[in-house]
Amino acid sequence: MTKPIDFYFDFSSPYAYLMARDLTHLAQRQGRDLVWRPILLGAIFKQTGRTPPIDGSARGAYLRHDIERTARRKGLRLNWPAEFPFSSVTAARAFYWLNQSSPKRAQHLAAALMDAIWIEGRALNDPDVLNEVARRLDVDVEAMNQAVQDPDIKALLKQEMDHAMSQQVFGSPWVVVDGEPFWGNDRLDDIQHWLQTGGF
Amino acid sequence: MTKPIDFYFDFSSPYAYLMARDLTHLAQRQGRDLVWRPILLGAIFKQTGRTPPIDGSARGAYLRHDIERTARRKGLRLNWPAEFPFSSVTAARAFYWLNQSSPKRAQHLAAALMDAIWIEGRALNDPDVLNEVARRLDVDVEAMNQAVQDPDIKALLKQEMDHAMSQQVFGSPWVVVDGEPFWGNDRLDDIQHWLQTGGF
Repeated sequence: MTKPIDFYFDFSSPYAYLMARDLTHLAQRQGRDLVWRPILLGAIFKQTGRTPPIDGSARGAYLRHDIERTARRKGLRLNWPAEFPFSSVTAARAFYWLNQSSPKRAQHLAAALMDAIWIEGRALNDPDVLNEVARRLDVDVEAMNQAVQDPDIKALLKQEMDHAMSQQVFGSPWVVVDGEPFWGNDRLDDIQHWLQTGGF
Repeated sequence: MTKPIDFYFDFSSPYAYLMARDLTHLAQRQGRDLVWRPILLGAIFKQTGRTPPIDGSARGAYLRHDIERTARRKGLRLNWPAEFPFSSVTAARAFYWLNQSSPKRAQHLAAALMDAIWIEGRALNDPDVLNEVARRLDVDVEAMNQAVQDPDIKALLKQEMDHAMSQQVFGSPWVVVDGEPFWGNDRLDDIQHWLQTGGF
């Protein structure tokens, strides 16, 4: 029972931000590694013919309301980023580049990026934001900026996306515990119960 | 704080079945009336350009799995109905017809229909099923079968649908507590917290 837990997420997914802290703590309490796996929901939506959930419809308005309400209940700050939705491809590439040398530092970068986006409300479309967050964590910003244009890193992200799609991941956040998939921040309690009881 | 709680649902929604028991008990414990409001999700999907969630895609397969898993966790029996998806328009009309004379009996009919569909796995497309369930509850089946073809009852359902859409209801189950909307069985804990604390 020491298999790592997979945490698939898109940086542009507010529910992933709402889940990350509690999922991290839950994995720690259960003695499990948490493998952060940034994905690009847009590419998955394109493949599956779906559309982003938070749009201009009544459904989009409800989801925004639900996200803000969930943040309040969890005691998490939330400020919508200056641009939303936004492309998370550069951040995902930066993550997988750093992940090659240190998964731990890549996780720290991902968590700091989530905070910049969802607490500070920064626009991830602005390359300065990624650079600033990376610099705070003593990441080599010049090397990072070269890496996000490197065909090998692009291929690495594509490989991760192919893996995610082969696992039928179609939403964010998406958590896999011992082969069992859970979609959504609202499955956190189910994940805890599953970890504690070994399944139900 | 004694305003009734609105419970919008489609008889063909398994998550509504999964929520009905716990929501009923929660409302009772909080001293609130629960107003059952059957709706037709198909008509809402048509209007909003969306498609039924439980389809042949990977998402549909995940949702079926999640529904069965949620039933196990809640200790609820679940058998997929012989035909799925199915039309719930006749059941909704029967409900609103009975609701005119007795909301309580209409709720009993709704709950018994949910059990017939989701525990016994009966096909609601089969008119015998509605008749059989109604008969068990001493409902006048002949009057009911006339009512579901009555233009006044059809208009009553349409009026309820217009009301639901004016309230931005776009999913099932959908619960409104003191003007606050909650979509999905997985918002039950939020609803309980909201009722106990007066909002968050």
